[in-house]
Amino acid sequence: MKMKHLLYGAAYYHEYMPYDRLDTDMQLMKRNGMNVIRIAESTWSTLEPADGVFDFTHLNRMLGAAAKYGIQVIIGTPTYAVPTWLVKKHPDILAITHNGQELYGRRQNMDITNPHYRKYAERMICQLMEHIKDQEHIIGFQLDNETKSYDTAGPNVQAAFVNYLQKQFADIHEMNQAFGLDFWSNRINTWEDFPDIRGTINGSLGAEFQKFQRLLVRDFLHWQAEIIDRYRREDQFITHNFDYDWRDYSFGIQPEVNQFETAAFMDIPGVDIYHPSQDDLTGAEIAFGGAVGRGLKKSNYLVLETQSQGNLSWLPYEGQLRLQAYSHLSSGANSLLYWNWHSIHNSFETYWKGVLSHDLEENYIYRETVQIGAEIARIGDKLVNLRKKCDVAIMVSNESLTGLQWFPISRTLAYNDVVRWLYDTFYRLNIECDIISSEDTHLQDYPVLVVPAMYSAADETLKRIDAYVAAGGHLLTTFKTAFADEYIKVAADIQPHILHTCLGVTYQHFTVPQKVSLSGSILKSNPAVTEWMELLVPDTAAVWASYEHPHWGKYAAVTHNRYQEGSATYLGCYFDGNTLEDIIRQLWTEIGLPLSDFQFPLIHKSGINDDGKQIDYYLNYSEADISLTLDSGYRTELLSGIKIKNGESISVKPWNLVILEY
Amino acid sequence: MKMKHLLYGAAYYHEYMPYDRLDTDMQLMKRNGMNVIRIAESTWSTLEPADGVFDFTHLNRMLGAAAKYGIQVIIGTPTYAVPTWLVKKHPDILAITHNGQELYGRRQNMDITNPHYRKYAERMICQLMEHIKDQEHIIGFQLDNETKSYDTAGPNVQAAFVNYLQKQFADIHEMNQAFGLDFWSNRINTWEDFPDIRGTINGSLGAEFQKFQRLLVRDFLHWQAEIIDRYRREDQFITHNFDYDWRDYSFGIQPEVNQFETAAFMDIPGVDIYHPSQDDLTGAEIAFGGAVGRGLKKSNYLVLETQSQGNLSWLPYEGQLRLQAYSHLSSGANSLLYWNWHSIHNSFETYWKGVLSHDLEENYIYRETVQIGAEIARIGDKLVNLRKKCDVAIMVSNESLTGLQWFPISRTLAYNDVVRWLYDTFYRLNIECDIISSEDTHLQDYPVLVVPAMYSAADETLKRIDAYVAAGGHLLTTFKTAFADEYIKVAADIQPHILHTCLGVTYQHFTVPQKVSLSGSILKSNPAVTEWMELLVPDTAAVWASYEHPHWGKYAAVTHNRYQEGSATYLGCYFDGNTLEDIIRQLWTEIGLPLSDFQFPLIHKSGINDDGKQIDYYLNYSEADISLTLDSGYRTELLSGIKIKNGESISVKPWNLVILEY
Amino acid sequence: MKMKHLLYGAAYYHEYMPYDRLDTDMQLMKRNGMNVIRIAESTWSTLEPADGVFDFTHLNRMLGAAAKYGIQVIIGTPTYAVPTWLVKKHPDILAITHNGQELYGRRQNMDITNPHYRKYAERMICQLMEHIKDQEHIIGFQLDNETKSYDTAGPNVQAAFVNYLQKQFADIHEMNQAFGLDFWSNRINTWEDFPDIRGTINGSLGAEFQKFQRLLVRDFLHWQAEIIDRYRREDQFITHNFDYDWRDYSFGIQPEVNQFETAAFMDIPGVDIYHPSQDDLTGAEIAFGGAVGRGLKKSNYLVLETQSQGNLSWLPYEGQLRLQAYSHLSSGANSLLYWNWHSIHNSFETYWKGVLSHDLEENYIYRETVQIGAEIARIGDKLVNLRKKCDVAIMVSNESLTGLQWFPISRTLAYNDVVRWLYDTFYRLNIECDIISSEDTHLQDYPVLVVPAMYSAADETLKRIDAYVAAGGHLLTTFKTAFADEYIKVAADIQPHILHTCLGVTYQHFTVPQKVSLSGSILKSNPAVTEWMELLVPDTAAVWASYEHPHWGKYAAVTHNRYQEGSATYLGCYFDGNTLEDIIRQLWTEIGLPLSDFQFPLIHKSGINDDGKQIDYYLNYSEADISLTLDSGYRTELLSGIKIKNGESISVKPWNLVILEY
Repeated sequence: MKMKHLLYGAAYYHEYMPYDRLDTDMQLMKRNGMNVIRIAESTWSTLEPADGVFDFTHLNRMLGAAAKYGIQVIIGTPTYAVPTWLVKKHPDILAITHNGQELYGRRQNMDITNPHYRKYAERMICQLMEHIKDQEHIIGFQLDNETKSYDTAGPNVQAAFVNYLQKQFADIHEMNQAFGLDFWSNRINTWEDFPDIRGTINGSLGAEFQKFQRLLVRDFLHWQAEIIDRYRREDQFITHNFDYDWRDYSFGIQPEVNQFETAAFMDIPGVDIYHPSQDDLTGAEIAFGGAVGRGLKKSNYLVLETQSQGNLSWLPYEGQLRLQAYSHLSSGANSLLYWNWHSIHNSFETYWKGVLSHDLEENYIYRETVQIGAEIARIGDKLVNLRKKCDVAIMVSNESLTGLQWFPISRTLAYNDVVRWLYDTFYRLNIECDIISSEDTHLQDYPVLVVPAMYSAADETLKRIDAYVAAGGHLLTTFKTAFADEYIKVAADIQPHILHTCLGVTYQHFTVPQKVSLSGSILKSNPAVTEWMELLVPDTAAVWASYEHPHWGKYAAVTHNRYQEGSATYLGCYFDGNTLEDIIRQLWTEIGLPLSDFQFPLIHKSGINDDGKQIDYYLNYSEADISLTLDSGYRTELLSGIKIKNGESISVKPWNLVILEY
Repeated sequence: MKMKHLLYGAAYYHEYMPYDRLDTDMQLMKRNGMNVIRIAESTWSTLEPADGVFDFTHLNRMLGAAAKYGIQVIIGTPTYAVPTWLVKKHPDILAITHNGQELYGRRQNMDITNPHYRKYAERMICQLMEHIKDQEHIIGFQLDNETKSYDTAGPNVQAAFVNYLQKQFADIHEMNQAFGLDFWSNRINTWEDFPDIRGTINGSLGAEFQKFQRLLVRDFLHWQAEIIDRYRREDQFITHNFDYDWRDYSFGIQPEVNQFETAAFMDIPGVDIYHPSQDDLTGAEIAFGGAVGRGLKKSNYLVLETQSQGNLSWLPYEGQLRLQAYSHLSSGANSLLYWNWHSIHNSFETYWKGVLSHDLEENYIYRETVQIGAEIARIGDKLVNLRKKCDVAIMVSNESLTGLQWFPISRTLAYNDVVRWLYDTFYRLNIECDIISSEDTHLQDYPVLVVPAMYSAADETLKRIDAYVAAGGHLLTTFKTAFADEYIKVAADIQPHILHTCLGVTYQHFTVPQKVSLSGSILKSNPAVTEWMELLVPDTAAVWASYEHPHWGKYAAVTHNRYQEGSATYLGCYFDGNTLEDIIRQLWTEIGLPLSDFQFPLIHKSGINDDGKQIDYYLNYSEADISLTLDSGYRTELLSGIKIKNGESISVKPWNLVILEY
Repeated sequence: MKMKHLLYGAAYYHEYMPYDRLDTDMQLMKRNGMNVIRIAESTWSTLEPADGVFDFTHLNRMLGAAAKYGIQVIIGTPTYAVPTWLVKKHPDILAITHNGQELYGRRQNMDITNPHYRKYAERMICQLMEHIKDQEHIIGFQLDNETKSYDTAGPNVQAAFVNYLQKQFADIHEMNQAFGLDFWSNRINTWEDFPDIRGTINGSLGAEFQKFQRLLVRDFLHWQAEIIDRYRREDQFITHNFDYDWRDYSFGIQPEVNQFETAAFMDIPGVDIYHPSQDDLTGAEIAFGGAVGRGLKKSNYLVLETQSQGNLSWLPYEGQLRLQAYSHLSSGANSLLYWNWHSIHNSFETYWKGVLSHDLEENYIYRETVQIGAEIARIGDKLVNLRKKCDVAIMVSNESLTGLQWFPISRTLAYNDVVRWLYDTFYRLNIECDIISSEDTHLQDYPVLVVPAMYSAADETLKRIDAYVAAGGHLLTTFKTAFADEYIKVAADIQPHILHTCLGVTYQHFTVPQKVSLSGSILKSNPAVTEWMELLVPDTAAVWASYEHPHWGKYAAVTHNRYQEGSATYLGCYFDGNTLEDIIRQLWTEIGLPLSDFQFPLIHKSGINDDGKQIDYYLNYSEADISLTLDSGYRTELLSGIKIKNGESISVKPWNLVILEY
């Protein structure tokens, strides 16, 4: 979905304010150039203080003020936190999870399949939509927020799961075979005998239940989208705020939602991206999160939430907030909304600070938003709807992530660590990547396909990858790929399953590396092998690296294979990112792709804007000036308006950037 | 309450003895000069073996033997551990907590508000009191023991909590506003909708419940005091054994009891103090614990429990038990009771050893108690009722402690760490401190008021502090002070709230220090700033230290402000204790208070005795001799009886002390 | 029980196979010389897919194929994992433990005393036995598998426990006294008042319940043995697969079973031994596990499970699988069964790999089993039924292990650490040890008795040890021995209780060593004392080591005492194994026992075979060649068939061995 202009704004909670200052806030937003607020999500108890009693006072005031100041509005459905009266009336709304039944208190504690919850949520949404349907400045709707299944696993959910299995497996014995339920007498001989799923130790059955829980999320958001559809105008979009695997910040692929499937119900996907800052600001999370957002519908995306001051250690140095803003835009974001406008004075997120601190006064963060707003007003239309063309696609899979939760690679290396190991290395080398689903059928759009640890895959997926290579694609894949099927059943033939021909390598054994290092002529060092190693036996493949070890030295570690029109590179073990850079450089040379002159901390990102012009961002994630000399053509530096000639050097200041237009 | 003589003795459990040796024990106590035993607490199941069947055999024998040997007795009410038959009869007595209902087994597992528990406990206490009322040598009563709420949070307690809130907030909407319950739809629109408090994620509501639980403790002990009052003679005191925040030893302010409020029902407060020993014996816990005990009623206090051999790593070196004894007395303790007389042969506290080891024979610890006892007999009357006069008061607050549990400063720095950071630094500098409540209205008694991390405070408290400074007081306060109100609602105006004028400093931002150090001309080093830093902007204040950092260098870290007749010093970040010493020395110079010639490990503590004479303790917490030269007047060293002239040097031996009387 | 030949094979699960390959597997087993498979345990849901419906298809096929290929069979009763239908029908089968009621899913989640479980299990076993009774090649039966109580502690179990106590204590007051239940009002005055045992904090009562749970295991296996007895032929043995305290591998004495008592119902005990491999392969776990297996009935034993590829980090280097095989045989094992034949493709133990990897093809592990099988075929009959004669017995005690769980030595040093500290030091010195029960009455069979940390012991046990020394035995014992009685009640007289005369030493105090080291003329170094130290006062004993410390230096740390005809050595503290070697060498010199010329990594183990010949194994657990010169007599090296003369050197290759026959 194309946008007319970049959206720039913040989540705004008039309900949480310690005193009335709506007009003051709107004036401050006007001054920093904000053009949108995101409101209403999580405020059910304010909108419906008692069963069937609706009170739109706060909403009306916010909508009125926004209209008065020419600010657009995104309305979030308020369903991810339930009011006290509803739980008192229907305690069954609280999800029963692996840890028992939830207590009232936190958000996201409900059974999203519960009929009472659904009935009341639908009435709430309909009342809300009825109430606001004539408001011109409402530009779109966010369904719920960061929806998950919250591990709902009560009797009703388990009954639905059995029903789901019955549809998949006409014959229960097929299911027993697919999941290997004979093991430890777990066999289920009639559907009536189905035990409480929460106790299962069978990875296949357990992973299937987690997949089913992801489907509940998809269906829930589909249901909400259909309700909104009854009311919305054609020009109003539907979005959702997708988030990531959380490791104190947005780290990897979201385990609990199949976002690719679920984004089908959105006009444009939204994401929230939180990341380290200060000395740890690298732009990697923003780029990774953006690649996911961009991949969900192969389109631009909205940043519906990102940090301004954020959590304690994220307070940005001067300049960093602005650098972060352009980091998002250079990945194809069409919006930049802070969470949130003002710091909150009570409850749980008091120290997840907004643009304004608790004093609600101007501060250096706010002053930086003024600069950003002014620049967006000036050059934003050259930056919106940026189309990106990447040589590399990284293929990800919820099923593999889940599979490697049941059967971990090691105590510390999870699926998303492998994804980020690859992504971040490309990032440092200034090779931009798309992120695609394992269901993607347009692999041929990319010269290079990267497949990290795709532990669980259906045969057809692996065959699709094989065909991609045969037709001239270049595959880079890792240990653990092509090991188990879609039911997490390990293949009973040669490993890597199906792909061994294309990869030109097989293995029968793997172990935990202890005092093992990697050696190979293409490597600049002999790094330690850690976490995992497979004892590779090359068939047709060339050996790019071997193990240094008295006993494992005879086995290959990294191989490269020409296969029909393409090539396939296999990383049989885990090691440091610098060495991975060596291997990628070698691969790029082999397959004739160009390498950037620059590397992290100077990050180069580019795309084509609505005018068909190439836009090049050079972003400096460091404390030092970096000098940049470009060798072809005239460009305009958009922020300064200065024209730069061929061969002329420009300086990219610390925590700063330049934007060049051809 | 003044005492005639120092109390010296131990907890004694005849019930636990593997064989009868009452007479032997009394003889051993006679020999080591003990004059009191503390009995009966925790023995309900012995005193009332079946419902309504009372058996005072053990008690009678102990009282008889004590009388025979001229030993006084403190009776503890036996209510902190319930008998099996009572729980079998009324299972509802077991508290329902955040972790579900307690099982029978450990002590302190009951709902202290439970009517069945109260009924049976009252009958037990009354029977006990009836039985012993004529015993002359019973000098006092200890109510229960180390009472807490044990997190009782069952339906009855929650109903009482709602009732309590209804009294505080006539209008439920005021409560919603005070606690910020709009957040995440937690709003409660009618009292009937009140959800299970155990699930709340709202820090304001949660902290209020913890405050309510503290009130339950106060009311419980008040109720017990009233029962005892019906029976006791005028000369018999009521006390309670208060304890501390526990970190494998007595560390800080007790989070679960407002001891200042609760001590109102005692004639004299009692405490139990446990601390590291051997090379880790510093005296700091004894002094800190004593300062709390002394502060509860601004009086002397009883040490009702302290270690003899104690826990495994606490076995004292020779001399340390005696040093510990005088460490207590020098803080104003009027008693010294060991927990316990003999090591116990079964159950839970087998390795929390007594004066006697499990062999119940004399040993080197016992022999040291003989020496202590002889000295107390000789000079104890010069040491009892020591009145202390401190220049410094440290103000503490349960609400701030709780608030910083909900909103931690960092993963490792809790409220009590900040309290001890300040207390221990003063201790090392030989500046004696009192500890006072945030409700204290006699601030003007102290030249210096120290306020560590008072995160939660009512406006009137902050105004009281402001007025104190205006009137000539010297305030030393830290980061996080004056940030949130009594409901843990963050102030929505300039920080530090209310105090910023007096402090002459404001701030809008804070962060986690990473590679930040402190610099200032008054500092001897450039220590790392850790855990927390506020970006201070001085207004009228002088900057005593700044941050060394490329971006935060422009902000102040430690400031000092002259304000009307007084001064106010602000520590905006956390750093090491040595640097805090530098700052305190500078402050003492500024405000013209004298600094001691000595520092830890030679600790100087003093007070005025009943004869109006100044008593000076010099305690050596080290393995080395320390030479001490005093420059004015004649003194008597009380332990040796030697007179010391002006300018004469005396040696304080390792783990030893001298006591000087003017 | 003597075996005709060594058993060599694997656990085989035809039920778990992804496709039918029974014939292929049997052919592969024929080729590697395997002669036995262990089947049926854990397959109840396959054998009885619905209530009363029995399906022996898989069993029949396996038995048929085994018969066809001349492979013997051990049948396991399938009772340690229950079918789904049974739990659906009788949910009470799932054990109620300290953590609440189990969910269905994992194995070993049932209440082994539950009447429904017992009834159905008995029917299953009977049906199975009826079905197979005529099969000639079934050589024995394994009862259940690694049976424990699984912490079953529901109301029925607790009622049985009270019944058990009533039998032990005619008078409830005796019980109160034995367990010290007066403490914290835990006294139980009538049996009806008995509280939920799960809440107890009384170590004596808690430990007694754990002892009772061990009795449940004994009784359960006794019950199964009686069922099997109704059906089995005289030539068919009954065994059980005993396991060990688990620390990611088989580490120490099993806490939850009294294996000595329980082995009474077996013809021959079986064990499963898992251990580190690669650089961490030392043979110590194999030797220790073997010593336990050998000790259970003072006989040879079966290795019913051990690793082939095993868990991730255990993949053996080439040669190690064979070295492991002989490591078992040299300890007296009469069988070698891998767990398991093939790696499993689903569920829980997917990465606990078998002889075959998931591809089910030959691999280097399989090829090594071919070599092992060929050697066993050739020389196995000289190795079977190896009789061993050790100079040293190590006495172990479940009660002490449990006692030290309730009253830990330190945070990291548990009972089994002390056992292994001693065992492993003897192992490194090539002093072979038996492991015996604390109930053993044949102490005089051993010149040296080692008693590690026997915290809990009845007086008669201690007197038996005292008598052993008096009669000429040499006792080596450690801290914590002889401290508490069989009810974990600490002795109220001189420590070490009863043994102090024999040891010639007493102590009244102990502590945690901090900056303490050990010194003594017999020691090669001054090691740190860690974890625990007792302040020993020698009476008649000589001091072999003292503490180096300003205050503890006056106490002894290690003592040696001549007592009547024997001697008693006491280790009063914990230190490193090298220093323990010094002490054992000194002791061996004192008591005139010979020390080996070799030490780890060259391990020497020996025994007498059925021909009455001495068999000497020299096993090299290292990467280096070790040269071996033997000084008396001719020998045949059995693996090579080469004769070796007196004084001739032979080389033991890395991860290899020689076997010498006189």
